[in-house]
Amino acid sequence: MAKLIEPKILKGFRDFLPAAEIERRSLVERIETSFRLYGFVPIDTPVLEYAGILLGKGGGETEKQIYRFTDHGGRDVAMRFDLTVPFARFMAEHREELPLPFKRYHIAKVWRGENTQRGRYREFTQCDFDCVGSDSAAADFEILLMMRNTLLSIGVGNVTIRLNHRGLFNRFLTRLGCQGQSVEILRTVDKITKAGRDTTLETLQEITGNETAGKILEYIEAKGNFEEILDAITAAAGGPSPESERLSLIRRFMNDAGVSSSFALDPSITRGLDYYTGVVYETFLNELPEIGSVCSGGRYDDLAGLYSKEKLSGVGSSIGLDRLIAALEALGKSEGKGAYVKAVIACVQEEQGGAYQALAEKLRSQGAPCEVFFEEKKLTSQFVLAEKKGAEYVIIPGDGPEEKFTLREIAQRQNRENLSFEEVLSILKRG
Amino acid sequence: MAKLIEPKILKGFRDFLPAAEIERRSLVERIETSFRLYGFVPIDTPVLEYAGILLGKGGGETEKQIYRFTDHGGRDVAMRFDLTVPFARFMAEHREELPLPFKRYHIAKVWRGENTQRGRYREFTQCDFDCVGSDSAAADFEILLMMRNTLLSIGVGNVTIRLNHRGLFNRFLTRLGCQGQSVEILRTVDKITKAGRDTTLETLQEITGNETAGKILEYIEAKGNFEEILDAITAAAGGPSPESERLSLIRRFMNDAGVSSSFALDPSITRGLDYYTGVVYETFLNELPEIGSVCSGGRYDDLAGLYSKEKLSGVGSSIGLDRLIAALEALGKSEGKGAYVKAVIACVQEEQGGAYQALAEKLRSQGAPCEVFFEEKKLTSQFVLAEKKGAEYVIIPGDGPEEKFTLREIAQRQNRENLSFEEVLSILKRG
Repeated sequence: MAKLIEPKILKGFRDFLPAAEIERRSLVERIETSFRLYGFVPIDTPVLEYAGILLGKGGGETEKQIYRFTDHGGRDVAMRFDLTVPFARFMAEHREELPLPFKRYHIAKVWRGENTQRGRYREFTQCDFDCVGSDSAAADFEILLMMRNTLLSIGVGNVTIRLNHRGLFNRFLTRLGCQGQSVEILRTVDKITKAGRDTTLETLQEITGNETAGKILEYIEAKGNFEEILDAITAAAGGPSPESERLSLIRRFMNDAGVSSSFALDPSITRGLDYYTGVVYETFLNELPEIGSVCSGGRYDDLAGLYSKEKLSGVGSSIGLDRLIAALEALGKSEGKGAYVKAVIACVQEEQGGAYQALAEKLRSQGAPCEVFFEEKKLTSQFVLAEKKGAEYVIIPGDGPEEKFTLREIAQRQNRENLSFEEVLSILKRG
Repeated sequence: MAKLIEPKILKGFRDFLPAAEIERRSLVERIETSFRLYGFVPIDTPVLEYAGILLGKGGGETEKQIYRFTDHGGRDVAMRFDLTVPFARFMAEHREELPLPFKRYHIAKVWRGENTQRGRYREFTQCDFDCVGSDSAAADFEILLMMRNTLLSIGVGNVTIRLNHRGLFNRFLTRLGCQGQSVEILRTVDKITKAGRDTTLETLQEITGNETAGKILEYIEAKGNFEEILDAITAAAGGPSPESERLSLIRRFMNDAGVSSSFALDPSITRGLDYYTGVVYETFLNELPEIGSVCSGGRYDDLAGLYSKEKLSGVGSSIGLDRLIAALEALGKSEGKGAYVKAVIACVQEEQGGAYQALAEKLRSQGAPCEVFFEEKKLTSQFVLAEKKGAEYVIIPGDGPEEKFTLREIAQRQNRENLSFEEVLSILKRG
């Protein structure tokens, strides 16, 4: 006999067994149902692309983490590491075929050869949704509303979406005379929760000097309700501006749509990514803020600049699926059904296999998922297997011509006897 | 300005624009709905695996086509080229966690660096479903029934599933004394439709000599109904055997379940793959047989032999999604909706963006997908955009306090005026 190959998977990669995969799919299906209600449409792009397309200007962490190799035709190719870069390429390539504003979602796997010691996976699913081709406050608001309502639709409505405007913050920095350090400052501010107030102040002092650093800290720590904070940061940035007007209009939309209480203005939210230029936001679960943002994004003014001369502005967001699943579990809000099957038809006589399937079809056609057992075994072992499969009922066909059934209620450990098909069906539909 | 990167994708790979992606998803969703009714559960496995796991004994076409490279940690890795090998590895690795028989489906992308000149893609989606851990005729029959009913559920019920038994054919070859050439003979017979009768006979003559070749051709060309063909090939293989009994029992199940007319016994069906040992089958659309089999598979007796000493027998099938989509299109049975959105809310005053979303939410909560337009433009251009987006209606909010609406019926090019919200909703629900 040949030597066996050890069946194992790569570090940082995962198998999804049925219970976990059903949970993931249930979540993704509910998210998609929500997205579609807003007129968002799905797209898909290749997993492999030219490395030059994916890396763009190149450099940085991405280049070190990307799975890159030479294919059979000698091409320099790589596996996508996010869904944003392929979307930018997609928009540049198909611009003429897509009516603007174009609202798309894309839920798919991406790959990064990250250090797995930090609990990161090398293969994970991203869930992005963007509206491209409109620079209106209404588009900003729609994404924010979708974030709130999509989370509500999966059972986590108790959220705070913390909002800020990068452009207003930059206007403030310009007024302070430190616009040249804006990227450094934004990144430092972005890490304040992790680094703590003191370290952040020290770092800002190193970048801008003590006085300016103090003013920046005052800006990002502005207190009050949405309107009060907006007034404070508007004044700090030199008075009303298109950016403060934008925040004000988005706030009016929140009020008119009756959703204000889910949103807060938080001048310390900056998002690390360079390409955001307008509103930026992160979403925290009020019952579980410590797990961090479950949905984040912002507005950018030049999505596809690497591939096209046309400036495409847009606004988008991304749901962290793995984090959300962990949160649902921690909050006891997982669906946790682990199976689709409702009833199992026990095998009493193997040669009745065709009749059992005919019976099962009658239930399936009524929308009741129904598994058929194939082999004559003791009924007690069939009950055990049915329970492992996640079924609630076992239907035991009678052997007389009168089509009567015994129904085993698995959780209750009891049998109901002499039922007609209609009685079985009505119990299954009720249960 | 930096030089632009040309936005293009790799040969053999595809972008899916919304209309195509919506069509694919609709198909996959209906297939999954059907699978779940049978108690089949989804799994997922990594795209990247150790190359040694995926290649197993190695050699042949697979090794030339697989995308294989060395990762950051110096591991020899590859992208999966089918879903069967990862499933075998999965079963060997997780055997203890899975109650048998285990019924799983897996719908996911695979990659092969094939010659694209034959119209093949290098990235495509496979849709596999298998029942592992039962060697019963009832399991064989369930897969066949699922194939029939799943195709019926997507609108292609007019099919013939052509069935054969590799074990019975091998018994016949043993009787002829040419069991040593069985793999070669099976492969030759498998290609008879493409190669034609004469070429097949010639090839068989080269393998086995003239007399035997004639007998083989007689066997695979047996004529009559299911029962007559079964009698003929049973006799040719030396009389009743476990294999002929298996076919006979499967036929009884078909009769008992009332689905016989969808199935035919066809002794020329062999499937090229070495690992099948029992029933094998292919599915042809009666209205479009020339596109070839849209769903094929068979029974195997040792799924995970490379990774485990435990023999796992099973039976499975695979739907050819790309071919099925092409067939649906050719038969005029594509859903072809290309969009989810039902209605669009026109933008009459931009500052009403919040109120428009509130209105849209009332429709969405009734299950009507509803897109909101963001920018004040001429109504006629908003109608054009709404049509491009695939919407059927444009809702034009009135500007009075009485909440009256004008409803544009896009296809009819007409407006209905002065409607209440309830009237709008009832038209949308009817339409």
